[in-house]
This record gives sequence, structure tokens and C-alpha cells, in this order.
Amino acid sequence: MLTLFYAPGTCSLASHIALEMAGADYAAQRIDFSQNEQRSEAFLAINPKGRVPALRTPQGVISETPAILFYIAQSFPAARLAPLDDAFALAQLQSFNSYICSTLHVAHAHKFRGSRWADDPAAIEAMRQKVPETVGAAFDLIEQDLLRGPWVLGEPLSIGDAYLFTVAQWMEGDGLDMARYPRVLDHRKRMAALPAVQKVLAAAQ
Amino acid sequence: MLTLFYAPGTCSLASHIALEMAGADYAAQRIDFSQNEQRSEAFLAINPKGRVPALRTPQGVISETPAILFYIAQSFPAARLAPLDDAFALAQLQSFNSYICSTLHVAHAHKFRGSRWADDPAAIEAMRQKVPETVGAAFDLIEQDLLRGPWVLGEPLSIGDAYLFTVAQWMEGDGLDMARYPRVLDHRKRMAALPAVQKVLAAAQ
Ligand SMILES: N[C@@H](CCC(=O)N[C@@H](CS)C(=O)NCC(=O)O)C(=O)O
Ligand SMILES: N[C@@H](CCC(=O)N[C@@H](CS)C(=O)NCC(=O)O)C(=O)O
Repeated sequence: MLTLFYAPGTCSLASHIALEMAGADYAAQRIDFSQNEQRSEAFLAINPKGRVPALRTPQGVISETPAILFYIAQSFPAARLAPLDDAFALAQLQSFNSYICSTLHVAHAHKFRGSRWADDPAAIEAMRQKVPETVGAAFDLIEQDLLRGPWVLGEPLSIGDAYLFTVAQWMEGDGLDMARYPRVLDHRKRMAALPAVQKVLAAAQ
Repeated sequence: MLTLFYAPGTCSLASHIALEMAGADYAAQRIDFSQNEQRSEAFLAINPKGRVPALRTPQGVISETPAILFYIAQSFPAARLAPLDDAFALAQLQSFNSYICSTLHVAHAHKFRGSRWADDPAAIEAMRQKVPETVGAAFDLIEQDLLRGPWVLGEPLSIGDAYLFTVAQWMEGDGLDMARYPRVLDHRKRMAALPAVQKVLAAAQ
């Protein structure tokens, strides 16, 4: 049995959707950020990073979205959520996920989590102000280059789509000029219509 | 034939070492950061992100260190640089690489590349000042938790070792209290003694 530790509105949505797309048997356990539960002793024993997502498996806990997504794809091969046997195609998918994780998500985190990288309140405010530009630049690259359409890899649907859909939830809040991203918005709309995604969005509150 | 685009002193060292450990037939092409070559039209045509590493393969270009490392491991299975058939062990490796990429490397980048996330010079200086703390915290987690020893996964050597060795080059420059990291330093010393690593360090100037 798999247990996903998640919080609404966070990057854990990607792993949640992937579990659902995979047809996995899993439980979802909410971590209450309003109570700082991610830093509780109980949760730090699960994930010493104090972050979601974390996926508890029979062998141990996995953290980091790209690693969890790949684990799900590899553990449920029948769902065909990654081109496991094509090294180049798989590298493109991993590259996409790594870019979201290390660049897009990190740019977004400078909005509410600036205190990770500086202590001075004026510096934290300066970071906040640049978020529309930095997150926007990452979505520019996705819009113009990385997203093949209709899905991230063209066809078929993959774990990359769950991840893109997740970070695309943040676009309006990050102050992006939405007119620049018709292809990403079309992707978001088609993803939102998938039963697996609807089920997770209804459950993951 | 594979071509790695690299720059000395950067994260591209990890991919370079992995190619060498894999016994791959590859060329290494230096991108001259002092001339801003990473933003030249010629290089942007190879990697629109304007960053190293980028690996040109017969099928196309791969960017993002974790994706390149995994591609090398999968393409040269005889070198056994990743536990390809053990989903949980592989997830631990991918998690390690993703953490370096999205957290440790990003913390380090706030030293010289603060202008990515804020425009105000005082904010950039405030970020620079926090680097010993943020990079130090990432190495704390590696020292105490992630690095199993003797290698990242215990045994055998993997792509994770090439990545850890690469970011461990930055420790002194990032102002870390080196006494805190005996296990990471021991790992660095043993890596530096490997013929593959010595060959790359001599070549990648
Ligand atoms: N690199 C990690 C980042 C995880 C992460 O930063 N999660 C955020 C939510 S999106 C979190 O748990 N933040 C809680 C905190 O900073 O206290 C991943 O991709 O999974
Ligand atoms: N997430 C990317 C980051 C690549 C990256 O930031 N590379 C740096 C060198 S360590 C670079 O090329 N910087 C050039 C620049 O910012 O102009 C990866 O892991 O490969």
C-alpha cells in the first residue's frame, strides 16, 4: 500500500494525479500547513526535509516530485505513463520534469518562501516582485518549446502532464500575462476534464 | 557520438564524469562563460535555456543534469551506474539527484546568480550572505542522512556520486564550516582518486 502525504495547492498535486492515472491502490494523508504540520516531529520522521510530497512505500519513503513521478510510472507499467524503454524519449521527459522542479517551481517559491534565501524583509519583497517575470519566462519556454501538444510528449499522456497541470494552477496567482500562454491554457483545460484529475481535485482539499 | 557542452567549475562536471565512468565515446566542447558564450546564438540553438550541461545525442539534445545522468546510466547498462530494474532503489537515487538539482544547486546559485530572482543590488547581496547557511543545510542533510557510504547508494558507485562530487567542489567557496562534513569530505577524497574523475578534471579546464 502506498501513502501520499500532500497539501492542497502545492506541487504534491502532481504525484496525486499520477497515482490516480496509474490506477494505484493508495491512501492520501493531508499535511496541514496552517498548523505547520510539515515541521512537526511526526512528519519530519517521515520526510526530514519537512516538505510535501512524500510517498510512503512498503520499502521506505520517497521524496522529490520527479523521483516520485518516475517511481509511479515504473511501478505501474501498464498505465504507460513514461517511455521506460526509450532512453532518449525518457530523457526528454525527465528533463521536462527536472526543469519544472529546479527552475519553474523554484521561481514560484520566491513569492511566499523568499525567507529560504534571504533574511532581510526588503530582499524578500524584491524577490516577490520578480516572480511574474521569472515564472513567466519558464512558462514562455514551455509554451514555445517544451510542450509538444496535445500532451507534453506529444502522445501519449505522461507523468509530465500531471506536473505541468500542477504548476499551471499557479499562473494567475503569480501574476502572469495569461494571453501569452494559449497552448499551456489549452493543456490545462484538457487535463482538468480528465476523470482522474477531477477525482483528485475533489478529494485533495 | 555524444557531445557534452560544459564549462569548468559548473554542474556540467557531473555529466562529464558520468560519461567517463560509463566508458562512453564522447566529445567535450567547452562553452566560454567569460565571453558569455552560453548566451550566444549558436549555443542557444543547442540549448535555448542558455545553460550547461547540454548533451547532444544522435536523436537530439538533452539538458538538465538529472536527465543527462539517467540517460547515460540507461544507455550504458554494463557500467551499472543506476539500479535500473529496482524501482525503489532507483527512486532513492533520483530523489538524491533531484534534491541536489532543485535545492542544493539552487541555494549555491544565489551566490553569483542572485540577479535571476531579484533586481535590487541590496537584495542580491542579502541572498549572497545567506549562502553558507542554505548550502550548509543541504550538506547537513546529505552528511547525516542521504549519503549512505561508502558511496551515495552504499554500493555500488552510481551517477549520484558524480553529482555529489561535483557540488562538493563548491563547499569552501560557499563558506561552509568544513568540520561539519567529515563523511562528505571523505567521499570527495575517494572520488578524486578514481581514474575516471582524474581524467575529467585534467581535461575539463
Ligand atoms: N523539490 C521538492 C520541493 C518540495 C516543496 O518545496 N514542497 C513545498 C510545497 S510546493 C513544501 O512542502 N513547502 C513547505 C515548507 O516550505 O514549509 C519537490 O519537487 O518535491
Ligand atoms: N537545472 C539545470 C541548471 C543548469 C545551470 O544552472 N547551469 C549553470 C552552471 S552550474 C549555467 O550554465 N549558468 C550559466 C548562466 O546562468 O548564464 C541543471 O541541473 O542542469
